[in-house]
Amino acid sequence: MTDRPGLFDPVLARGDARAAVADDAWVAALLEVESALAQAAADVGTLARADADAITDACREPVDAAALGAESASSGNPVVPLVARLRGRLDGDAASGVHRGATSQDVVDTAAMLVARRAVTAITADLRAAADAAAGLAAAHRDRPAAGRTLLQQAAPITAGLRFAGWCSGLDAAADALAAWRPAVQLGGAVGTLAAFDGHGQTIRAALARRLDLAEPLLAWHTERGRIAELAGLLGRAGAAVGSVSTDLVLLAQTEVGEVREDVPGRGGSSTLPHKRNPVAAVSARAAAIAAPGLVASVLTGASLHEHERAAGPWHAEWRPLTELLRTVGSGASWLADAVGHLAVDPDRVAGSLDVTGGLLLAEQATTGLRARLGHAAAKDLVTTAAATAQDEGRPFAEVLADAVGGDVGALLDPAGAVGEATALVDDFLRSRETERSGARPIDREERT
Amino acid sequence: MTDRPGLFDPVLARGDARAAVADDAWVAALLEVESALAQAAADVGTLARADADAITDACREPVDAAALGAESASSGNPVVPLVARLRGRLDGDAASGVHRGATSQDVVDTAAMLVARRAVTAITADLRAAADAAAGLAAAHRDRPAAGRTLLQQAAPITAGLRFAGWCSGLDAAADALAAWRPAVQLGGAVGTLAAFDGHGQTIRAALARRLDLAEPLLAWHTERGRIAELAGLLGRAGAAVGSVSTDLVLLAQTEVGEVREDVPGRGGSSTLPHKRNPVAAVSARAAAIAAPGLVASVLTGASLHEHERAAGPWHAEWRPLTELLRTVGSGASWLADAVGHLAVDPDRVAGSLDVTGGLLLAEQATTGLRARLGHAAAKDLVTTAAATAQDEGRPFAEVLADAVGGDVGALLDPAGAVGEATALVDDFLRSRETERSGARPIDREERT
Amino acid sequence: MTDRPGLFDPVLARGDARAAVADDAWVAALLEVESALAQAAADVGTLARADADAITDACREPVDAAALGAESASSGNPVVPLVARLRGRLDGDAASGVHRGATSQDVVDTAAMLVARRAVTAITADLRAAADAAAGLAAAHRDRPAAGRTLLQQAAPITAGLRFAGWCSGLDAAADALAAWRPAVQLGGAVGTLAAFDGHGQTIRAALARRLDLAEPLLAWHTERGRIAELAGLLGRAGAAVGSVSTDLVLLAQTEVGEVREDVPGRGGSSTLPHKRNPVAAVSARAAAIAAPGLVASVLTGASLHEHERAAGPWHAEWRPLTELLRTVGSGASWLADAVGHLAVDPDRVAGSLDVTGGLLLAEQATTGLRARLGHAAAKDLVTTAAATAQDEGRPFAEVLADAVGGDVGALLDPAGAVGEATALVDDFLRSRETERSGARPIDREERT
Amino acid sequence: MTDRPGLFDPVLARGDARAAVADDAWVAALLEVESALAQAAADVGTLARADADAITDACREPVDAAALGAESASSGNPVVPLVARLRGRLDGDAASGVHRGATSQDVVDTAAMLVARRAVTAITADLRAAADAAAGLAAAHRDRPAAGRTLLQQAAPITAGLRFAGWCSGLDAAADALAAWRPAVQLGGAVGTLAAFDGHGQTIRAALARRLDLAEPLLAWHTERGRIAELAGLLGRAGAAVGSVSTDLVLLAQTEVGEVREDVPGRGGSSTLPHKRNPVAAVSARAAAIAAPGLVASVLTGASLHEHERAAGPWHAEWRPLTELLRTVGSGASWLADAVGHLAVDPDRVAGSLDVTGGLLLAEQATTGLRARLGHAAAKDLVTTAAATAQDEGRPFAEVLADAVGGDVGALLDPAGAVGEATALVDDFLRSRETERSGARPIDREERT
Repeated sequence: MTDRPGLFDPVLARGDARAAVADDAWVAALLEVESALAQAAADVGTLARADADAITDACREPVDAAALGAESASSGNPVVPLVARLRGRLDGDAASGVHRGATSQDVVDTAAMLVARRAVTAITADLRAAADAAAGLAAAHRDRPAAGRTLLQQAAPITAGLRFAGWCSGLDAAADALAAWRPAVQLGGAVGTLAAFDGHGQTIRAALARRLDLAEPLLAWHTERGRIAELAGLLGRAGAAVGSVSTDLVLLAQTEVGEVREDVPGRGGSSTLPHKRNPVAAVSARAAAIAAPGLVASVLTGASLHEHERAAGPWHAEWRPLTELLRTVGSGASWLADAVGHLAVDPDRVAGSLDVTGGLLLAEQATTGLRARLGHAAAKDLVTTAAATAQDEGRPFAEVLADAVGGDVGALLDPAGAVGEATALVDDFLRSRETERSGARPIDREERT
Repeated sequence: MTDRPGLFDPVLARGDARAAVADDAWVAALLEVESALAQAAADVGTLARADADAITDACREPVDAAALGAESASSGNPVVPLVARLRGRLDGDAASGVHRGATSQDVVDTAAMLVARRAVTAITADLRAAADAAAGLAAAHRDRPAAGRTLLQQAAPITAGLRFAGWCSGLDAAADALAAWRPAVQLGGAVGTLAAFDGHGQTIRAALARRLDLAEPLLAWHTERGRIAELAGLLGRAGAAVGSVSTDLVLLAQTEVGEVREDVPGRGGSSTLPHKRNPVAAVSARAAAIAAPGLVASVLTGASLHEHERAAGPWHAEWRPLTELLRTVGSGASWLADAVGHLAVDPDRVAGSLDVTGGLLLAEQATTGLRARLGHAAAKDLVTTAAATAQDEGRPFAEVLADAVGGDVGALLDPAGAVGEATALVDDFLRSRETERSGARPIDREERT
Repeated sequence: MTDRPGLFDPVLARGDARAAVADDAWVAALLEVESALAQAAADVGTLARADADAITDACREPVDAAALGAESASSGNPVVPLVARLRGRLDGDAASGVHRGATSQDVVDTAAMLVARRAVTAITADLRAAADAAAGLAAAHRDRPAAGRTLLQQAAPITAGLRFAGWCSGLDAAADALAAWRPAVQLGGAVGTLAAFDGHGQTIRAALARRLDLAEPLLAWHTERGRIAELAGLLGRAGAAVGSVSTDLVLLAQTEVGEVREDVPGRGGSSTLPHKRNPVAAVSARAAAIAAPGLVASVLTGASLHEHERAAGPWHAEWRPLTELLRTVGSGASWLADAVGHLAVDPDRVAGSLDVTGGLLLAEQATTGLRARLGHAAAKDLVTTAAATAQDEGRPFAEVLADAVGGDVGALLDPAGAVGEATALVDDFLRSRETERSGARPIDREERT
Repeated sequence: MTDRPGLFDPVLARGDARAAVADDAWVAALLEVESALAQAAADVGTLARADADAITDACREPVDAAALGAESASSGNPVVPLVARLRGRLDGDAASGVHRGATSQDVVDTAAMLVARRAVTAITADLRAAADAAAGLAAAHRDRPAAGRTLLQQAAPITAGLRFAGWCSGLDAAADALAAWRPAVQLGGAVGTLAAFDGHGQTIRAALARRLDLAEPLLAWHTERGRIAELAGLLGRAGAAVGSVSTDLVLLAQTEVGEVREDVPGRGGSSTLPHKRNPVAAVSARAAAIAAPGLVASVLTGASLHEHERAAGPWHAEWRPLTELLRTVGSGASWLADAVGHLAVDPDRVAGSLDVTGGLLLAEQATTGLRARLGHAAAKDLVTTAAATAQDEGRPFAEVLADAVGGDVGALLDPAGAVGEATALVDDFLRSRETERSGARPIDREERT
């Protein structure tokens, strides 16, 4: 696929990751590796700089991805025809210097690292944008009482800020983990011995890594796919973060809840239902998250099966699922950044949700409040009985509880008093995040020990 | 993606399934459904035939998939802008008759059925081609002794024909199961009530199903994705059949085994290793099979999560994984048909494999042969001891066994006598297959009861 | 694991499938196969009936699953020590007749079919129970107006009966598909040639299949795992049906929606929140559905990788995921039957949901109703404008619409008139279901063509 | 399941991870958390130390896992009945102090961290044992020429040491990544606000983390499952490392290759094939690796779906797949440590493999060797032609090449000269590994930049 988006791409392959993994980007990365390999040979003196420069020039001429693909069927990968094309553009030592010593997989794997790095950068940026938006919401609604829900039942009050801080926390952690992924150069030659480099393989490998800003493993990893599996795992985690937040979004945007909506003019209309305001961004983010775990499994399965020095299928099996996984998680992150970035919180509906149960939502707070007076067991009994009576008789819980307690229960049932340490939790979280973002502590933000 | 193959497609998206699921094919299917819907309305008299014909004409003008995709981001699916385009090409009742009563998902789901049916037809044809080729090999080598292997250890003789019949059996069953899949029309309107069809919804649905040759469920299945899950399962099974046979192929083609090779001139060369004959087709088939199970999981996960009348993410989550699953399994089936169709069996290497263990491969036959004379336990002890002696002392098993038995062991160790009922099994299988293919019994070929 | 439930089993392994796949059930099935194999040999005359009966008697003595497991580590499967134990209980021809001609995988695979059949029977029964309960609800609420929701937004009215009929439809189809699965006998000997049956392999195989009521494939399927893959796909589909219905349940039971609740006294209480009525059954059913797709992928991956005559890992890889998949889907089906069977529908809350949007839910009906008078485009414009005005100005849609139309809009906004053909759809569905259940047409209920 | 192994456990749940995740271990962890929570409350003064000590004593009395499980069905998790039991063992403030302020998920999640940590420790130890064994093999065979294989075809010589170093590298990296995983305490109360801790929630949380040696996140992660997803990804990577190495093992142990075998007396026998030496450990390790990716997908799917403050199914969906994933990867690591630890390398077969192609394996070396004399293109042509002639005419490649070159080709075809920088690569790798193991650089061993 070229960079031109496909039919479903605007919905399912949004964001910069799509272009980063497009066919054109793959071909560009393959050419970048062949060019850098020639320059690395020149760096260590096994190829004349002029020949390396001629190769680099040849690598700048465009190569059509589809044509290259068509030529790759007989060899099984696009590097064989790419090298033939490059050599066809050159003469003499420059021609024979193209790809010298390397095997196709060296080039595809190193190019895959470049492709993945660009996609990861895009995904990380979108995750951070979503996290920043969530942090902004957390600050704006830090002490706003809201209904907390467990098992999709209203359970007890929270603050809206605590919810948004929770989103931010998961997105930050997923982004930090992805950002810490280190791509690596691949150079081993046909079977990992660097045998066709005339004894200069390790130094050329070091030069290649330096030129491409990649880590340099001590051994070829043609069939040791740990870093591919690692990347898949990190993308799976990022997808999970996207999925969980976007699930919250579609639930909070339900007609019956209506605490939030995506405020993007002109989006979310329905062909037949004029009043609907569909949370298109969150729905699209969810779609990406749902598809991701299976793609992780595909990548891991391939990684589990590599044979001997280079694999008979598992390697090829990696290309499409990994590309699709990057694209999919990228789409989810991009949509989520859009959704959270445009989120409109409706304070009236947030407050309204707290009234839905007629005060039952504050039962735990009432129990806690009565504990000092009555002891834990008696307090719990009293509240449980009052709740049951209110539900059975259809009376307001506040009224039943007042009868049972024999006095005013206003303070017991004030939601602002029922949010525990929520405001402090949000403040601590945001302060800590601010400190880290300013550079003090990069990754393990979540620990205090 | 249009029908033009991408960079990795010739390796990973071979065969006719790719074009069947390409963006252009999707758009064509969407147009086909809109056209048929108008004609169905005319069939029952809610739309003038002339207006329906005008709509059908409008549906014949090409629509660019990428442009349509770009317009779909705000609504979340391509039908909204497609309907707008069609209406823009028409006037009056024809314009208002486009898409009348339907919801976007009606059109996308029905189009998905058309797309899937074409891809399934392609996949089934390739599976059958591979099965036919395997049946041909089974007939050609029906009684050729060969080494049977368990846990990748040589275990006892088989016939080559039995191996190929086994391949055929699995491919036949996978193809039969896929061919029995019945796609269905989707028509329910916004929430499945057919409310915008002025009371003619069920009759229009019947007419639409008839026109598109689709089954007609009694209810809309907007969120009841059983037939999608069923299709994913069938494709998973097909992928497993492809995977297992192609795994055998790469193992039998190993340099150290060499019993088969893919005989396609000009394919399988290596950029650096002139002597290699890589089993490119089998490797590519395996790559497809490895990727498939994760895609099945993605489709099933989506199917598990549909909410209410139409889903908030799980539906969108279906498009790319299902498309990719069809494409991937199609690629595997196509490569496998190529691999088995071009398989060259090397009779010398097949025979040579039988000699690798110096006769140990016939230990079970020797035990069976000696049972009548010595009883089971004593026969097994004698053979086990002889085998251990041969291995420990590096002597031919035949010689050690002859010493132990005190006489000639040629008949005991003749592989042709050690293949049990293999030839009858192959003959029965091929005869039964021939009968079924001639039409007598379509599917449950495998049962005798 | 024995039949005694584990810590998480009451929540995650409910229903009869758990016991059907427990270790004790596996051992019983292994013994049943060894017994039937001896009797089959007697049927065809290669073993004396008295010896076969002695073997059958030996197979009736209990074998401890954990002890057997411990003895299996060195051989890799439990049949090797099981045969040793059985032979130890017998003498002479009976001892040597145990397991004669078979390989371990013959016995494990055939036992797996027996185990799976029992679990599938349990799962199917629970799916049918859930479907029956849904059908009952559909009948009881066949024309009750309710809010239909798309993308978790209220969209247009449905009937509650249509929702429940939709549940029933998916569960029926999943149950029918599972019930149609045909388990098969496995008998091939070490490499599938039946070489150790003295020429009576095929007849013994037929006798064994007859005794165990299993289909008899023409070839051993030691490495052709199509029927395992098929079963995994069917279970994946069943899990998806469970997942989708249980997702609806938890959404409808939300505090803010409250249209249904699980009416099981004493269940669903919270340790800290006395007023909560958690939908424990639906939550547990969902948990099962979420876990299932990955297990399907594990089974399919194994099925894709079988090598040669018997596999080096993929076969062993099947046991736990397949067992776990049966157990998990069984748990989901059991919980769902419980949830739907105990479902209390709250008519007031169902009606109340229809009022949440102040009439906007009926916008599509209003458009349709005004089409005759105004034409489609003008009707849609008028309604869209009125809806926007109502939302922007916070006025009831009915009032705004009445102003715009200049007259009474009661009929336009009556939900009972907005459910299209819902009642006919439900009636047709239930009538068709009744006919099928009475035996007329077993499976392809969903087709009319 | 209790710690008593089940039927398939000795094959599929080997090693210490099984016991670490057994039901008994889960119950012990739940009790450990309740005890530590009480002590943490005493640490900050909200509970008398004597009451905390009484709770700790009560937590030391055994609780039957199955009985506890049976009591958990109505609440959906085992903490509700566990707390009831503990309170039943106590009086007064001690009774009411049990579990005070916490929600069930706080205890289950924190216990899951303890359970996972122990399992991860076991898995890491087995991965390191396998890596150490591989390092030993790499040192022992550092410069032994061996056949390198790509796409299962012999390609060019390597050293056996390079192969073993590659195994070691992947296992080290997987172990390092797992060892770096940081489990965290969970404490939030019903909705994450710490509302029932009377304002001491954050300090109690800190004390609890300190007592259990867990990281302390700033927010509850009831529905932010990043660290669960992270763990799943790391386990997936570990499984991939196990899978790839064990695949090499079964391939190298093939009868036709025979370069290695598992040297464990009494293991690997076949019930019917006395001469077989099945690589049981590698086969069992592979079985685990094949099952793992699907389990990762199950865990990630659950993690993607958590709703609001505590989830309606996705949380419960985590328990069995995560437990099974730990057990499965643990089994694979344990078997692999056994397999590599007992690996017998057969030097004659290793050398013999190099002769299988009659010298063709050295074609690339010959090309390189002739390049100086003939230029790259001519050298490649000459060697390619000679290789084709040798294959077509069935003559030794060495002879054909000598004819073509017109002189001695012994040096060109000496495998020891064809292994490039393999020995230096192995030496560098082992030296670097030694340095790290001695403590200098813990994790990012693989980078040089």
